[in-house]
Amino acid sequence: MISEIYDVIVVGGGHAGCEAAAAAANLGSKTLLVTMNMQTIGQMSCNPAMGGIAKGQIVREIDAMGGYSGIIADKSAIQFKMLNLSKGPAMWSPRTQNDRMLFAEEWRLALENTPNLDFFQDMVKNLIVENHTVKGIITSLGIEIKAKSVILTNGTFLNGLIHVGDKQLGGGRMGEPRSFGITEQLTSLGFEAGRMKTGTPPRIDGRTLDYSQMEEQKGDENPGKFSFLDTPLLKEQRSCHIVYTNEKVHDILREGFDRSPMFNGTIQSLGPRYCPSIEDKINRFAERNRHQLFVEPEGWKTVEVYVNGFSSSLPEDVQIRALREIPGFTNVKVFRPGYAIEYDYFPPTQLQHSLETKLIENLYFAGQINGTTGYEEAAGQGLIAGINAHNKVHGKEEFILNRDEAYIGVLIDDLITKGTDEPYRMFTSRAEYRLLLRQDNADIRLTEKSYKIGLATEERLRKTEEKIFKSKELETFLRETSLKPAIINPILQEMESSPVDQAYKAAQILTRPNINLNTLDRIDFIENKSKEYTTEVREQAEINIKYKGYIDKERENVSKLHRMENIKIPEDFDFTKIASLSAEAKIKMNAVKPKTIAQASRISGVSPADINVLLIYLGR
Amino acid sequence: MISEIYDVIVVGGGHAGCEAAAAAANLGSKTLLVTMNMQTIGQMSCNPAMGGIAKGQIVREIDAMGGYSGIIADKSAIQFKMLNLSKGPAMWSPRTQNDRMLFAEEWRLALENTPNLDFFQDMVKNLIVENHTVKGIITSLGIEIKAKSVILTNGTFLNGLIHVGDKQLGGGRMGEPRSFGITEQLTSLGFEAGRMKTGTPPRIDGRTLDYSQMEEQKGDENPGKFSFLDTPLLKEQRSCHIVYTNEKVHDILREGFDRSPMFNGTIQSLGPRYCPSIEDKINRFAERNRHQLFVEPEGWKTVEVYVNGFSSSLPEDVQIRALREIPGFTNVKVFRPGYAIEYDYFPPTQLQHSLETKLIENLYFAGQINGTTGYEEAAGQGLIAGINAHNKVHGKEEFILNRDEAYIGVLIDDLITKGTDEPYRMFTSRAEYRLLLRQDNADIRLTEKSYKIGLATEERLRKTEEKIFKSKELETFLRETSLKPAIINPILQEMESSPVDQAYKAAQILTRPNINLNTLDRIDFIENKSKEYTTEVREQAEINIKYKGYIDKERENVSKLHRMENIKIPEDFDFTKIASLSAEAKIKMNAVKPKTIAQASRISGVSPADINVLLIYLGR
Repeated sequence: MISEIYDVIVVGGGHAGCEAAAAAANLGSKTLLVTMNMQTIGQMSCNPAMGGIAKGQIVREIDAMGGYSGIIADKSAIQFKMLNLSKGPAMWSPRTQNDRMLFAEEWRLALENTPNLDFFQDMVKNLIVENHTVKGIITSLGIEIKAKSVILTNGTFLNGLIHVGDKQLGGGRMGEPRSFGITEQLTSLGFEAGRMKTGTPPRIDGRTLDYSQMEEQKGDENPGKFSFLDTPLLKEQRSCHIVYTNEKVHDILREGFDRSPMFNGTIQSLGPRYCPSIEDKINRFAERNRHQLFVEPEGWKTVEVYVNGFSSSLPEDVQIRALREIPGFTNVKVFRPGYAIEYDYFPPTQLQHSLETKLIENLYFAGQINGTTGYEEAAGQGLIAGINAHNKVHGKEEFILNRDEAYIGVLIDDLITKGTDEPYRMFTSRAEYRLLLRQDNADIRLTEKSYKIGLATEERLRKTEEKIFKSKELETFLRETSLKPAIINPILQEMESSPVDQAYKAAQILTRPNINLNTLDRIDFIENKSKEYTTEVREQAEINIKYKGYIDKERENVSKLHRMENIKIPEDFDFTKIASLSAEAKIKMNAVKPKTIAQASRISGVSPADINVLLIYLGR
Repeated sequence: MISEIYDVIVVGGGHAGCEAAAAAANLGSKTLLVTMNMQTIGQMSCNPAMGGIAKGQIVREIDAMGGYSGIIADKSAIQFKMLNLSKGPAMWSPRTQNDRMLFAEEWRLALENTPNLDFFQDMVKNLIVENHTVKGIITSLGIEIKAKSVILTNGTFLNGLIHVGDKQLGGGRMGEPRSFGITEQLTSLGFEAGRMKTGTPPRIDGRTLDYSQMEEQKGDENPGKFSFLDTPLLKEQRSCHIVYTNEKVHDILREGFDRSPMFNGTIQSLGPRYCPSIEDKINRFAERNRHQLFVEPEGWKTVEVYVNGFSSSLPEDVQIRALREIPGFTNVKVFRPGYAIEYDYFPPTQLQHSLETKLIENLYFAGQINGTTGYEEAAGQGLIAGINAHNKVHGKEEFILNRDEAYIGVLIDDLITKGTDEPYRMFTSRAEYRLLLRQDNADIRLTEKSYKIGLATEERLRKTEEKIFKSKELETFLRETSLKPAIINPILQEMESSPVDQAYKAAQILTRPNINLNTLDRIDFIENKSKEYTTEVREQAEINIKYKGYIDKERENVSKLHRMENIKIPEDFDFTKIASLSAEAKIKMNAVKPKTIAQASRISGVSPADINVLLIYLGR
C-alpha cells in the first residue's frame, strides 16, 4: 500500500514521538509518524502543564535546538510562572499551565506544517528485522511499511494494564486501546523487558469546587515564555489553587489499602518515586498530617480540573470519599477516577548514547519505553533520537550532548550508563554542572550546535548570536563603568548594603547580594545604556557578572572531565582481565561497556579506586 | 462511588447522546453523560459536514426546539451552502462543512456549560434492570450508578468490528475500543438484536492533491446558517472540490473484490443503501463509467481531507492504487484507509413513539442503535429521547412530533412502524407533507411546542413570534398593494414575463415563476416597505404567497389524516380475529401493534383495503 521507503518511521504520537518526527523531518529525512489515533496526537496524558524544576530547562533546551515543545507550550499556555526565583539562577525553572485541547491541536497543526513528514493511523504490531537491522514496521492491518530506521515511542501503550482498586482493564490510556506484539518480538530478539507503573489523579468537575477555601496561585505578573523565538506573551492568565489533605482524608484512603493494587501485591512494578500516588505518600510519610495538592485548570474554557498530587489507584469509591474531605471539595464530582497503569519498558542500558539500541541497528527508543517519566524527558529523548536516526541514515556522525552541555545530556547519560528500575525523572541535583545548564542560556549552549547539524534555523542562530554579542557588550560596559561613592552610596544605603569609600566598577557593585541591574538603573547614565537591551540580554549580563566565580570554577571542572573523557576504552575490552578491579566493578563495567574513562566513572558501584586501576592499566 | 440518583443517564457522547443529555438537563433533569472518552465527545466519525438534503431540515428543527446541533454547526462552520435553491422551497436544504476538531470542542464546551449535566468517563457494560424497569448502569470499572431512566446511544461501538479487506479488528471507531456486554444483556431480556454495517472513506493528506485538476465548489456568496438564534455568519469560507472516478479506477477496485469482506461473504449485514461504498456503486451501477467524489477539507487549518463518495472496505493497497488514478490524486498519501464497521443494532419496532423500549420501562434508544445512519438523524432522536426521558421521570406526558409537524416525526414514525433492516437515512421523499416541513419554517412549526414543555427559551419564542407577526404584516401589505401596468410592465418585460393590462396586487404578480420579492423591490414604494424586514421574514412572506395553493392543499390532506389519526385501536387488539384482513396485514399489524388507524395504514404490506376492513370492524 505504501511503497515509499521512509528514512525514519516514528511509532507513537506523544511528546517523544512528536519531537522525533519533527526533528527528523526538519533535518530532511522522509519521515512517517504512525499513531493509533490521529485525533490524539500531542495528548497531555497527565497534568496540563509543561516545564517546572529541571524540566523547564529541558523545554528551553529543546527549543534552543529547534524542537517544537516550547513553541507549542507557549501557544497553548494559560499561565506562566518562573519557579525558584528566590534561589540562584541555576534553579530558575519556567513552567506553563496549558490548555490541554489547544496543546494537542497546536502539535497536530505544527506537524502537519512540517515538510517531509507523513502520517499514518494504525497500530504497529511488529518490526521488520533482518540481520539484526530494522527495516520497517508491520501494522495491525498487516500493512508493511519499509524504513531505514525506526524510533519507538510507545509510552504506556505496550501491554498497558489499567488498575483502579481491584479492577483491571487493558488500555494504553483510559478509554484508549493498548498495543501488543512489539514487546514479545523484541524479547525474542534478545531484549530485556520490564514493567513499570505510573498513575494519574482523578479529573474533577470544577463547577463543584469552592475555590474560596483554597489559596489562589496566580501566574507571574510579567509572564515569560519558553521559546527563544517570537512566540506571543500571555496577556491574561488563569489561576491555579493550592489546598491540603488532612488526617480525615488520610484515614479514608487507608481504608482502601487492602483493596489497593499497590499494597495487596497486584502491582509489583515500581512507580515514579518523586511523583508518588497519594496512598504512597501517606504510607511512606506516615508522620505527615497533610500533603499539598495543586488544583490546575485544564484550559481556557473547560470546567475540567486536574488535582495534582492526588494520583491514586485506590478503589474509586475510596478516592471520592477522601476527596470530599478536602476543603472546598465537599460537593466534588469526578469526571473519572484516578488510576494506575502498568506498561512494558526496556532497561535503557540496552541503548547507545544516540538512543540507538545496541542489539538492533537503526532501531531507536525514546520516552517512557526507556523507563522515564515526564513530558519533557520524553520530548528531549525524542529530539535526540530523531536527530540521530536522521544522521545515521545519511551517513553523518552521532549527535550527543554531554553532561556539561545540557540536561538532555545528563538524562541520556544517566539512562544508558546507570539504567533505571523506577520511572526516571529529571532534577537539578542530577546535573553536576547545573550552574552552566541554566534555562536562560540554553540557546547560547545549544543553538549553534544544532544549527551546525542543520536543525536550528538561521533565524535562531542570528538571534542567539545577537544575544551573545549584546550581553557581552553590556557586561563590558558594566565592568568598565566606575561609580563614585557620591553616586552609588545613597542607593547602597537604601538597599541596606554597606557604603563604599572609593569608586568601584558597576560590575563589582553588582556582585553584592541585594543589588541587581534594576537597582543600578536608578543611576541615569547606567539606565540610558541598559535600557537599550532586552530583558534576556540584561539578565544574561547580570548572571555572568554576579556568578562569575562559580561559573568559572564549574568550567574548570568541566575541562578536567574532558581530559578524562578523552581517554577511550577499547571496544569489547574485557574488564574481568584486570585482576585488581573490584568484583562489582568488573561485572558492572562488563555489562555497560563504557567507551571512556569518564563514562566508566559514572557507573554506580564503580569507585574512584577502580578508575585509578583502569587508568594505570590503560597506560596513564 | 456516585451516590446521586440521576433522573437521566445518557450512554454515549455522539450526536444522539449529546442532544439527549442537553435536552434532559435543560428541561431540569439531573442528567449524567457517560462516555468512554471525554476527549471524543461530539466527534464527527464520518464526513465533516452537517445538514444537506432533508438532513438540513432536521438540524433546523433541532435548533427550533432548543437543541444544540445547529448552534455548534454554525460556530464550527467553514462553509455554508443552501442546496437545491433551483427547486421549490420544500427542497431547499442548508449544509455546512465543519472544522472537525472545533465541532467536537464546541460540543464539549456547550455541554460543560449546561446546568444539571454531569459527566463520567467509563464504558457502560450493563444496565441495572429490575421488574422490567431500568434502574441504572454498571460500568467496566464495576461502578454502579442509579438512575430513573437510561438512554442508550452507543453508535457503532456495540461489538464493533472493523473490516479492511480480509482483515478484522475489534473497535468502535478506528483507534478506539469497542464496547460489549449491553447487547448480550438486552437479548437475554428478550430484545431482538441485529447487525448493521457502515463505512467510511480514506483520510487523505491534502498536501498531496492537485486541486487544479478538480472543480472548485465554493460556499454561498451570502452564507446563511442553521440556528434561528444569533450565531455568527461566516465571513470567509473554505472550498470543497468535485472530481470523478473513471474506468481505470473501477478496474483496479474490481481486482480487490475477491478480498472484499462485502463480496466474499465475510460481512452479511446491510450497509446504508444511499451512502454506498465505492465498490457497491461500481457493482450495482456497472453501466456507469464514473462516480462523483466530493473532496472536503477537514477544518480551517488542518491538511486532512475527506473523500466523500469513496467509502470502502477493500484492501488498503487496492484503495490507494485506485485513488491514484483519480485526476489530481496521482501523488496521494493517505492518513488511514477507508474501512467498514459492523455493529449491533436493535430493530426499532421494539420502541414506542417516545423512543422508550416496549420491553423495559424507562429505557430509551437513540441513534445508530435504532438502525439509522447520519449525524442529523441521530441528533434528532437524541433530542426526542432526552425530552421523553425527562417527561416520564417527572410524570409528564409523552412528547411526540407528528409526520405533518417535523422530519423528526417522520423519522421516528417510520422507524417504529416500519422498522428498518438497512441503515435508515432521511430523504425529502419520505415526508408526505414535505411542503409543510420546510427548513425556513422549522421555528414556526416547533418553537412554541418546545417552549410549552419548557425546552425552547423565552428568547426563542419571542423571535419566532416576531417572525410570524412581521411576515404576516409584509404578506398583507403585498396582498393589498396594487401595481398599475405603467409601473409593473417595464419590470415584467425585462423579466420576460407577459405584461398586464390592468392593476394587479403585488401578491398576484409574485406568484409568477420568474418574479420574486427582489424583483418587486425595483419599485420604490415596495422597496421602502420591504427593506424594513429581515431576509428570513421576506423569505417567509414570499413563500406563503408564491406557494399558497400547494400549501393549503397539503394542510387539507393533513386535516383528513388527523381525522383518521383520531381513530384509536384498542391496546392489545388481536388483528388475527378479523377474518377478512389479508394474511400479511394480520401478521404485520399484530407485530407492530399500531395505536391508530393512521399508523396502521403506514405499515408496509398493509393495503387500503385492509384499512377499510379495519375501519368497518371498529365501527366506522
